[in-house]
Amino acid sequence: MSSPRVARATVTPILIADPPLLNVLGVHQPWAPRMVVELETDDGVTGVGETYGDSDYLAIAETLAERVVGEPLTALNRLPALAGSAPAAEAIEHDPSGLRGARTSGKLVKSVVSAFEVASLDALGHHTGLPVHALLGGKVRDRVEFSGYLFYRWASHDADDAPSDDWGEAVDPAGVVAQAERMARDHGFRSFKLKGGVFPPAEEVAAMHALRDAFPDAPLRLDPNGGWSVEASLEVARELDGVVEYLEDPTPGVEGMARVHRESGVPLATNMLVTATEEIAPAFAAGAVQVVLSDHHYWGGLLATRDLDAICRAHGVALSMHSNTHLGISLAAMTHAAAVVDGLEHSCDTHRPWQVEDVIRDPHVFRDGELEVPDGPGLGVELDRGALARLHERWLERADVRDRDDVAAMQRVVPDWKQPALPRW
Amino acid sequence: MSSPRVARATVTPILIADPPLLNVLGVHQPWAPRMVVELETDDGVTGVGETYGDSDYLAIAETLAERVVGEPLTALNRLPALAGSAPAAEAIEHDPSGLRGARTSGKLVKSVVSAFEVASLDALGHHTGLPVHALLGGKVRDRVEFSGYLFYRWASHDADDAPSDDWGEAVDPAGVVAQAERMARDHGFRSFKLKGGVFPPAEEVAAMHALRDAFPDAPLRLDPNGGWSVEASLEVARELDGVVEYLEDPTPGVEGMARVHRESGVPLATNMLVTATEEIAPAFAAGAVQVVLSDHHYWGGLLATRDLDAICRAHGVALSMHSNTHLGISLAAMTHAAAVVDGLEHSCDTHRPWQVEDVIRDPHVFRDGELEVPDGPGLGVELDRGALARLHERWLERADVRDRDDVAAMQRVVPDWKQPALPRW
Repeated sequence: MSSPRVARATVTPILIADPPLLNVLGVHQPWAPRMVVELETDDGVTGVGETYGDSDYLAIAETLAERVVGEPLTALNRLPALAGSAPAAEAIEHDPSGLRGARTSGKLVKSVVSAFEVASLDALGHHTGLPVHALLGGKVRDRVEFSGYLFYRWASHDADDAPSDDWGEAVDPAGVVAQAERMARDHGFRSFKLKGGVFPPAEEVAAMHALRDAFPDAPLRLDPNGGWSVEASLEVARELDGVVEYLEDPTPGVEGMARVHRESGVPLATNMLVTATEEIAPAFAAGAVQVVLSDHHYWGGLLATRDLDAICRAHGVALSMHSNTHLGISLAAMTHAAAVVDGLEHSCDTHRPWQVEDVIRDPHVFRDGELEVPDGPGLGVELDRGALARLHERWLERADVRDRDDVAAMQRVVPDWKQPALPRW
Repeated sequence: MSSPRVARATVTPILIADPPLLNVLGVHQPWAPRMVVELETDDGVTGVGETYGDSDYLAIAETLAERVVGEPLTALNRLPALAGSAPAAEAIEHDPSGLRGARTSGKLVKSVVSAFEVASLDALGHHTGLPVHALLGGKVRDRVEFSGYLFYRWASHDADDAPSDDWGEAVDPAGVVAQAERMARDHGFRSFKLKGGVFPPAEEVAAMHALRDAFPDAPLRLDPNGGWSVEASLEVARELDGVVEYLEDPTPGVEGMARVHRESGVPLATNMLVTATEEIAPAFAAGAVQVVLSDHHYWGGLLATRDLDAICRAHGVALSMHSNTHLGISLAAMTHAAAVVDGLEHSCDTHRPWQVEDVIRDPHVFRDGELEVPDGPGLGVELDRGALARLHERWLERADVRDRDDVAAMQRVVPDWKQPALPRW
């Protein structure tokens, strides 16, 4: 009658097809590393989780997979300590670059923990017959709205063996609007986010105006990943006043963000400035953030997302949800987390429409841009072992692809490309 | 296989014996109102919760008891909304007095919700075979330390039919030390808190010095419930520098607390200034609080206590636990909550040693001032239906006692006693 214990933990690195999506650092590689975590309990119940699959994450995950065996399935609050003392976690050097803001070993540990926490909750859901949201205090909404995530992109990768799709090129306002129209047609999205920081701000402002013309009532957002100076951000804010519901990470750093908000009045969202507990207080105190884009991979899981929501509500800061390249396990986890947080005031991001592969049977289908919150046991997904094996086989074959590196991918096409110092404009 | 639903919710008001404990407002009445909430699911599982039993709370609880029937047992996050629109909740007037800080209908609702949330978790624990702490992410400690809660007190109530005990009078340093020695002997407490605000500050300072002499290594605290001016607080802080680990609510208001901390350097704890979400940000921003004394009855339950811990950790504010007159159901709930919060850095308060009655079989026994975190299903308590019926019978018989009123109780002994304006000294 007590908690089941973890009998087996399996970490499977995979490579998934990814289109040539552009951002301030460069371009997505043809293959993106992810990992799938499977837990099996001593009474034969299983659960799955998904997170980043780059080498640093993988090293921590392999240690955690050993340490978690024999632990109670319900010992979620102890996972960070269990992983945090892993040798791999301590060896990682801090790297202030990248799209995730400051990179610390603590953040990598949380990202790995998130997959084990989600897998534990999925297994606990199967053990108890309860949906994951019920293990987080219960859903406060029946459907979760997602936004259409628009990218400047090339028609194809510049590599013979790369995956391809039929979306075509999008490098100007007309291309962005066409992409949004297909997103709306295919998935029913009623709000849109454009990943910016790719072209000079004036071009991206023009794309936002074109989106506004094409979708007069849709909430719109633009995210240059800290690509603009304070002055450039203020200029964009003026030109997009009344067009965007908020700007995401227009400029790097607490002081810059605070100044942009103070002088423009435009709400600012972030998934770069505030991605760990220690970054919250200074950013909130400075008034640098009005919307935190939560990400259960960043914060260490679904209970941690609930914690973040509580912190945001205490400060009158809104919550929405960030996304990175992910598959259906993570989308299910995001949906359960979004179902239980009181402070969710905006549609959530998802990369899911860009992924042509998945590791679950019956991948999610958006209706009117929404997903229904599943009430069946666990996450409500079933692992497709054949697909997992194929994607892992690709990982084994492509030993040259172990880490996401948008800069290197861009350099293969533009040889003199250098990682831009932020802000770029 | 889905969540069980609530089939029956029972609210039982009771009166429990309470000794003549003194505080800044007056004295405890001979009988203190509490309520016990029982939930039964459609598959016959039961759970219990306990909270304040005063009329205002009772009115909200009776409405919530009707509304919760048919709801999923796991719908914890929806309980505040379900109770918050109760007619009784809206009718309550705000009363800025009292030991709980500002009194709002929102706070009363949360206090009622807490008992339903705990009863739900207890039932869910029995349904799943899991301890309540496992439903909150799992314990991070195996034992929870409590402090000996010392009170100035009279030997007996001034009423013929009042309950009595053999603790005797404590109105001076020697009486306080004798009380602490018995607390240590009976329960093993290794830290002590004195409820102050009863005598002029110099007398209470003398009692703290006497405690320090008698217990050279014990963490000590003094709590006058906002009874002192800033100047009096600073004087006490000087005289108790190095004697107390922190002062509790020395003075009312954010500005006063912030000044006392700034000028004395002594950490300040509170269960008056920060007892609801909207009070957190201003108090933390001003540096008015270094330790939040959490109370699951105040904050709306055990998940809400977890939320509060996350907020405090994001701000480097420590967490401990407040107590009011309570029985074993609440003590069990406090123990499970204390088991899962990362930020717990101090022993928790409990009034339990002052209560000679209980509504559970096998009331808790402190060993070395600690309780072991139970790993059995639910809270780990069994309702004593005979005891509950007797205490409810008392509530029915004593229709003159419906609300706690320390001022009125004092006035029965000291006819010209008036509710003191705070600060008193």
